[in-house]
Amino acid sequence: MASFTLHGIPVSRGIAIGRAHLLAPAALDVKHYLVAEEQVEAEVARLQQALAAVHKELQTLWNELPKDAPTELGAFIDVHALILSDPMISEAPLDIIRARHYNAEWALLTQIDELSAQFDEIEDLYLRERKADIQQVAERVLKVLMGTEQILPPKAGGEDEAQPQMIIVAHDISPADMLQFRDRSFIGFVTDVGGQNSHTAIVARSLDIPAAVGMSGASTLIEQDDWLIIDGDAGVVIANPSPLVLEQYRERQGAAARARKKLQKLKKTPAITKDGVEITLLANIELPDDCPAAMEAGANGVGLFRSEFLFMGRNSKIPSEDEQFEQYKKAVVAMKGRPVTIRTLDIGADKPLDQSEQTALNPALGLRAIRYCLAEPQIFLTQLRAILRASAFGKVRILIPMLAHAFEIDQSLAMIAQAKAELRELGVKFDNDVDVGAMIEIPAAALALPMFVKRMDFLSIGTNDLIQYTLAIDRVDYEVAHLYNPLHPAVLQLISMTIAAGHKAGIDVAVCGEMAGDVKLTRLLLGMGLREFSMHPAQLLSVKQEILNSDLARIMPQTRKIMRSMEPNVIADAVEQLQLM
Amino acid sequence: MASFTLHGIPVSRGIAIGRAHLLAPAALDVKHYLVAEEQVEAEVARLQQALAAVHKELQTLWNELPKDAPTELGAFIDVHALILSDPMISEAPLDIIRARHYNAEWALLTQIDELSAQFDEIEDLYLRERKADIQQVAERVLKVLMGTEQILPPKAGGEDEAQPQMIIVAHDISPADMLQFRDRSFIGFVTDVGGQNSHTAIVARSLDIPAAVGMSGASTLIEQDDWLIIDGDAGVVIANPSPLVLEQYRERQGAAARARKKLQKLKKTPAITKDGVEITLLANIELPDDCPAAMEAGANGVGLFRSEFLFMGRNSKIPSEDEQFEQYKKAVVAMKGRPVTIRTLDIGADKPLDQSEQTALNPALGLRAIRYCLAEPQIFLTQLRAILRASAFGKVRILIPMLAHAFEIDQSLAMIAQAKAELRELGVKFDNDVDVGAMIEIPAAALALPMFVKRMDFLSIGTNDLIQYTLAIDRVDYEVAHLYNPLHPAVLQLISMTIAAGHKAGIDVAVCGEMAGDVKLTRLLLGMGLREFSMHPAQLLSVKQEILNSDLARIMPQTRKIMRSMEPNVIADAVEQLQLM
Repeated sequence: MASFTLHGIPVSRGIAIGRAHLLAPAALDVKHYLVAEEQVEAEVARLQQALAAVHKELQTLWNELPKDAPTELGAFIDVHALILSDPMISEAPLDIIRARHYNAEWALLTQIDELSAQFDEIEDLYLRERKADIQQVAERVLKVLMGTEQILPPKAGGEDEAQPQMIIVAHDISPADMLQFRDRSFIGFVTDVGGQNSHTAIVARSLDIPAAVGMSGASTLIEQDDWLIIDGDAGVVIANPSPLVLEQYRERQGAAARARKKLQKLKKTPAITKDGVEITLLANIELPDDCPAAMEAGANGVGLFRSEFLFMGRNSKIPSEDEQFEQYKKAVVAMKGRPVTIRTLDIGADKPLDQSEQTALNPALGLRAIRYCLAEPQIFLTQLRAILRASAFGKVRILIPMLAHAFEIDQSLAMIAQAKAELRELGVKFDNDVDVGAMIEIPAAALALPMFVKRMDFLSIGTNDLIQYTLAIDRVDYEVAHLYNPLHPAVLQLISMTIAAGHKAGIDVAVCGEMAGDVKLTRLLLGMGLREFSMHPAQLLSVKQEILNSDLARIMPQTRKIMRSMEPNVIADAVEQLQLM
Repeated sequence: MASFTLHGIPVSRGIAIGRAHLLAPAALDVKHYLVAEEQVEAEVARLQQALAAVHKELQTLWNELPKDAPTELGAFIDVHALILSDPMISEAPLDIIRARHYNAEWALLTQIDELSAQFDEIEDLYLRERKADIQQVAERVLKVLMGTEQILPPKAGGEDEAQPQMIIVAHDISPADMLQFRDRSFIGFVTDVGGQNSHTAIVARSLDIPAAVGMSGASTLIEQDDWLIIDGDAGVVIANPSPLVLEQYRERQGAAARARKKLQKLKKTPAITKDGVEITLLANIELPDDCPAAMEAGANGVGLFRSEFLFMGRNSKIPSEDEQFEQYKKAVVAMKGRPVTIRTLDIGADKPLDQSEQTALNPALGLRAIRYCLAEPQIFLTQLRAILRASAFGKVRILIPMLAHAFEIDQSLAMIAQAKAELRELGVKFDNDVDVGAMIEIPAAALALPMFVKRMDFLSIGTNDLIQYTLAIDRVDYEVAHLYNPLHPAVLQLISMTIAAGHKAGIDVAVCGEMAGDVKLTRLLLGMGLREFSMHPAQLLSVKQEILNSDLARIMPQTRKIMRSMEPNVIADAVEQLQLM
């Protein structure tokens, strides 16, 4: 067995050591043929049976979902079930069989290709991975049609050394596939494709399982039962490592397990630097159900409630004011008086499955977030009223995404005033002093801060988008993902300027992008003056530990040195030194 | 006849007064039916004949092309001819007729829909309007198929008041349609759709014909033979104006004609401000054939040769080193010793019609320009050698687009050094001291100027992209085009910082985006310290006139005032005042 090392994108941290289990792509051997006239209805029935079988499969998966399963997993099953029962999948392929006499597999693929193309035309930044859902649903149906039951690895034997645990290696993995493997000896995964925002990545992080994706060629180079080490921190996979390397990684694994245990003790410790500066640690959540995890991690509140998740997987149906209110209220109540910062809708299109003549070629630069909301005032007002109503039940803050122009700020504030007036008219209670803040995530915003601090109660830096636009890089585009660099001097300047401008104006500034949850950057952000970090609950304790070990007096001079440099190498070295201080 | 006013996007300046001529969309009434088995081959023949007829039509158009016709027009015919002879159009629809028994029109539309969808998946920033080409070619074929010969307006009777001149009103206009109307009494156009970069806009500007696009509903609201005024400066169309309004516009028209005549006298006048500061005025060109127009306008050289135009319309075939060299040399020779700044390839994909699994969802944030060139070193090296060889025949400068990272600059310079070494090895002559410059068009670049001035000989600010990324706006996306604002304080700061940093380092800084050719912004840019403007040759004399009437001593304090402001209204007012100084 040859030993070799592959490099990809690290998407879920930690180290996994186990045997390779290869998943073969289901759609590889689909046959294309025409069925005879008299066999058409039999072929239609064959497809219908396969669709029904998959439907049942999904239901079984859903029923077997452990109570503690991450929200994402259930959501994925929902999405797949929705896709499966959409007439575009449940009926259109049947029509193709009848009209063109294609065999069931071919008819299904034909329809999927067409849907995929339509999907490409409309999908927005947040829905970009949903095309993969359609294909994954199709793959499930194809598997049934072709009678190729997937070979499952044996049930997990616990952490038994004698029976090595398995690492899934595949071209791509659907969330449903992952669910199937959840109960089994499955401790990490590696895929040829994907990026930070692919399903594989999202689910891996939520399950806290090491993963590396975008590892081109992995599924062809790695052989069944190869020994693998996934270094989820570095995005590296080592196949058939030498005993020495294996031993090193086992040691790292042990140390990590001990560190994790230690972290749990910090839950109730306030996040205070060695020199006594208290830091606010907030949680990013997607649904109210994420609140218990945020409380459990000791978050001081919710810094970013991504409200668009309430709007997804609903077949384009917008949730009513009451429905939204119930969800916002649920989050507010669950946080027990701690502030909940609700970001207003950040989506790109109201009809994600509608094929319109005019399509955004660059959705990231299109009608997104507040631009969309100002263009759809009724949707926006509905959401604002729902948020305001929730503010009667606890501390709520409203956060507006994608602002860049003064008139957008003014219009947003006017809409909030209007929503308040409408509620007042109806005699509905709300917090009249609810704080309103702006996401700083467009370079123009970070370069026009006086325009913002004058009008807003707080700022929240969305580093993901800010980096994306500042560098003109789509970070989920694998061809340029390597150019996405949070340490580019331009990015650091914009973040630093925003923190400084907020503090000078006496308003709170948080970072809620991924940089806030990256312990390698905690000290740099502290040194820039950041006092509010908002991140995935799973990252909170690590960041807190880093803060507890930090001494601002030592960090600040080094940060100033970093901010004066324009040379990436100098910056990278200096940031590393910062961690050793 | 009701009088009303419509507002759209101004894409080509000037005033046109004439009667509306409505173009009906050809594809509206396409019938869908199945042909009998025995008629399939006849239907195939019918489509073949239509394809041949359109082919002939395009050839006729090409032959009748006036010698002085803008390069763009010929290029468009080429593109249409290429599309027409591609098997995807010339063969695939025939197969659809044979396989599915669709009628010819339906088969063609089916294929076009599929192609459009594929096209959406891969097209890049520069190719985005090419999907419209496919549809326009299809419309030509459909017209022939359906025997609906378009009704042409009568041949032009000169500027005869008695016979009013015609303004084309349509949902959209293909370039080939425009060519057909070129000889006739056709003095302006209005379309429901389109943006700054649509064909309609590009051709209108190159023909210097007033136009307003993106005028939603125009083709339904305006009736045949309505009197129309196009105000191409404001993007306004007035239907059936009152005699008073008509008279006012006639006066403006007359004044504009007199001003144009006066401008011609400035050709040989150096561009010097009232207080004696000489300004360099350069031309933006797309092909060497644009050089005579640049010389004719008195340009001091070429500030931006968009070399990607040599790579387009070639069926994905990359021009050889010799082919490229001949073109670069042609431009250098035509400019008679004046500098020619050649921007290296700024495209997004080598195979624009290739359907690959991985596609860029946001091409503007993807593998473009230098990112592409560094990923395709052989293509880049070939171009660099060709440019260097041309430098033996005159003053050549190399301009690298889309740089943002230090390593990209360093790699680009290393590639140029390698190209030089290869030529030296072969004993081929070139200018060893050829200047190398960077486009500043990504916010990160404008925010990390020390990184650039240290390594580069000159800078050129590409305001179009810089604004796009700074504001996170795709300016050709009609849904957000209204948010594209060159006067956003963030944009002004980045431009001003770049000019200042270049001058401090003692290197030239030009602006080569559309801002450089906009006389409303000339004084603002002068006030920021800009001394090099590069623009379309047609804009050069107007800008020169503005410079001749400008007094830096008066402009500078006002500019400083503008730069201190963060409020868009204040800025807009102050910029207007600047023009009155």
